[in-house]
Amino acid sequence: MRFVDIIEKKKNKEELTKEEIKFAIESFTNEEIPDYQMSALLMAIVLNGMTDEETYHLTEVMLNSGDVLDLSGVEWVVVDKHSTGGIGDKTTLILGPILASLGCKVAKMSGRGLGITGGTADKLEAIEGYDIKMTIEEFIKQIKEKNIALAYSIGNLAPADKKIYALRDVTATVESIPLIASSIMSKKLASGADCLILDVKVGSGAFMKDIESARKLAKTMVKIGKHFNKKVRAILTNMDIPLGRNIGNLLEVQEVVQVLNNNGPEDLKKVTVTLASNLLNMAIGKSIEECEYLVNETLDNGRALEKFKELIESQNGKYNSIFRENQSKVEIVKATDEGYITKLVAENIGRSSMMLKAGRQTKEDKIDYEAGIILLKKINDYVKKGDELAYFYYNDDELLKEAEKVFLAGVEYSKDKVDEPTLIYEVIE
Amino acid sequence: MRFVDIIEKKKNKEELTKEEIKFAIESFTNEEIPDYQMSALLMAIVLNGMTDEETYHLTEVMLNSGDVLDLSGVEWVVVDKHSTGGIGDKTTLILGPILASLGCKVAKMSGRGLGITGGTADKLEAIEGYDIKMTIEEFIKQIKEKNIALAYSIGNLAPADKKIYALRDVTATVESIPLIASSIMSKKLASGADCLILDVKVGSGAFMKDIESARKLAKTMVKIGKHFNKKVRAILTNMDIPLGRNIGNLLEVQEVVQVLNNNGPEDLKKVTVTLASNLLNMAIGKSIEECEYLVNETLDNGRALEKFKELIESQNGKYNSIFRENQSKVEIVKATDEGYITKLVAENIGRSSMMLKAGRQTKEDKIDYEAGIILLKKINDYVKKGDELAYFYYNDDELLKEAEKVFLAGVEYSKDKVDEPTLIYEVIE
Repeated sequence: MRFVDIIEKKKNKEELTKEEIKFAIESFTNEEIPDYQMSALLMAIVLNGMTDEETYHLTEVMLNSGDVLDLSGVEWVVVDKHSTGGIGDKTTLILGPILASLGCKVAKMSGRGLGITGGTADKLEAIEGYDIKMTIEEFIKQIKEKNIALAYSIGNLAPADKKIYALRDVTATVESIPLIASSIMSKKLASGADCLILDVKVGSGAFMKDIESARKLAKTMVKIGKHFNKKVRAILTNMDIPLGRNIGNLLEVQEVVQVLNNNGPEDLKKVTVTLASNLLNMAIGKSIEECEYLVNETLDNGRALEKFKELIESQNGKYNSIFRENQSKVEIVKATDEGYITKLVAENIGRSSMMLKAGRQTKEDKIDYEAGIILLKKINDYVKKGDELAYFYYNDDELLKEAEKVFLAGVEYSKDKVDEPTLIYEVIE
Repeated sequence: MRFVDIIEKKKNKEELTKEEIKFAIESFTNEEIPDYQMSALLMAIVLNGMTDEETYHLTEVMLNSGDVLDLSGVEWVVVDKHSTGGIGDKTTLILGPILASLGCKVAKMSGRGLGITGGTADKLEAIEGYDIKMTIEEFIKQIKEKNIALAYSIGNLAPADKKIYALRDVTATVESIPLIASSIMSKKLASGADCLILDVKVGSGAFMKDIESARKLAKTMVKIGKHFNKKVRAILTNMDIPLGRNIGNLLEVQEVVQVLNNNGPEDLKKVTVTLASNLLNMAIGKSIEECEYLVNETLDNGRALEKFKELIESQNGKYNSIFRENQSKVEIVKATDEGYITKLVAENIGRSSMMLKAGRQTKEDKIDYEAGIILLKKINDYVKKGDELAYFYYNDDELLKEAEKVFLAGVEYSKDKVDEPTLIYEVIE
């Protein structure tokens, strides 16, 4: 088999066989073929697509390229969650404790943030002492004992995906539904859960800018999951505006505690409850309504919050550190016009938060856990010129003025209210 | 400027600016960016195409990447010719002397053969002593003195094209009209002629398999030429069947002498005269009919043959060596059926000739100058089973039986004649 013939086939929009895909991925991962051949193949895939069968094969080869977690020793159903990433998206930290408090086994690995998108691993590290690194054994042991583990890198999952992603990142071949779907799903399948809920974000602050492409991605991931006999469901949610009011690692964890105390922002709670109820529905088979009742109940009676404290302590974190005094300087961002706020563009807010060092521009950047933004106003709030819109928390003022400019460019005012933004677009299963 | 943004643009079917194309080609040629980024860009170009403007820019950057021949010191009009390559295509060796004998200055560089396609440089080397390597000064001097030089590599023409082509070859990114057209034209423009005739072959033995794509390529090359103020014309010619009867380096040179003696195969003569008349028409402005008369006249009166001898002697070749005894072994290929021959698939004949070592499978292969094929029968000749179809000349019998099989698979018989194949499809200017 010659790699160049595989490129040729894909270039000509022919379907690759399982053997060809296996050969391509393995010879690249084993460094038997040069990167320039792989990048040509990736571009051909980006532009000519992949069939469902090809996508299944690609996922399978990548998932089998490293460790595959065996969670069969964990009694009861193991659940997992993935978000395609957004601004202020801290649902994992609420949903995980909710499910765990209801008896599900939550086996969740999370990544770091990059660009405007935050990462759960960074948020956890904003909690003093929280150890995001675990061995496979520690991970499984904690799930068995505490119902939940939230960790960063466990074992060597899907290394082929990692290697391919690194090349995609520098060759403009990231945007491809089959490549994104197989990348996400190979890691999720390798981490061994039975049920998986996918939060596919749609909008300016998300990777998928429109519902059509988000739906395609969601459908592809759900198909892959089913092909590998997992229960998988995807929910398309709004990322035109940030989720909740807090953006930035420590600030987001503080908002998580608000929701677990049942007094956080409504939008964040609604999205989290929807994701949690759907995941519970897959796990225990009760109706969505019953699951929603159970989810709300465990929030109301404080058991989810207790589980969150237990999780943090299990991973050596100090729960009280969440409420430490934020040592950052504060800049108050003020309205430049009068009217109802009709837009709070998530992308702009994400970018300004990144400029305050709450996020990383490149993988090598250090982040400031206490930096970030608190939104004081949201859509349809009325403001006068000079009213306070947001607090910027920062320690590095290098890009402060620029961040404020970017933020304000994402705010629009009008004399009329707009329709309340739809939070949940659709459920795909 | 970042290379990845240029890939991104082309992936999104946006038009690249002159600066972006210059940056892309120069940073690749100077090895400032990795090959994997270039191959991703090339695949995006193959699949998303290039506008005329982009193609002009690409051609310009490549043509200026190395030496550009200055033939302004050569009095009278300088002419050149290019063929996209075929089986038995020896027209350059006839057309060159014709034009030179009529007073034009023929500045022609030729390449080596690869795969089923022959190369003029190899054919010239079948003549004992013929020196295909010249310096720029020798090349220009000979054109001034003898009206013609036929050489291999002169100076360092379009090195960017060479480097890009090498990458395209191993990443399945050869097939692209703008890439092929700019590759050919950058070299041709760098070699400095005033008038250029392009022989775009169409059919099984050619790179372009159908008239539609051949026409596209021809039109693109003609446009590029005009953009750079050159007189350029393209002729689409038949390559479903080999041109002439002889395939293989020495055998083809022998057939060239037959045509120059006005007793070679009609098809070869017709294609050559058409190309020559069109080139002469561009050079001297007389009507095609007058030019055709002049071309036929110089063939009839032996002046073209004299010029051919003069050319060979100027480049240290021994004219008489063309008629040396062919030391090869001969295999007679016989008809396996009875009827009129309705197909002689050029691709099969090219492949069998390559198997006899008249051509190279890879760049590193050595060729046998005396090996090849003489076709005894052509389309619409009637044969009985066992009649002689062709002579195979060979010294290495490793693939002899396989070559015969491939050859015979390309021959079809019928009880009825077919329409005479069209030799010249169209002229594009």
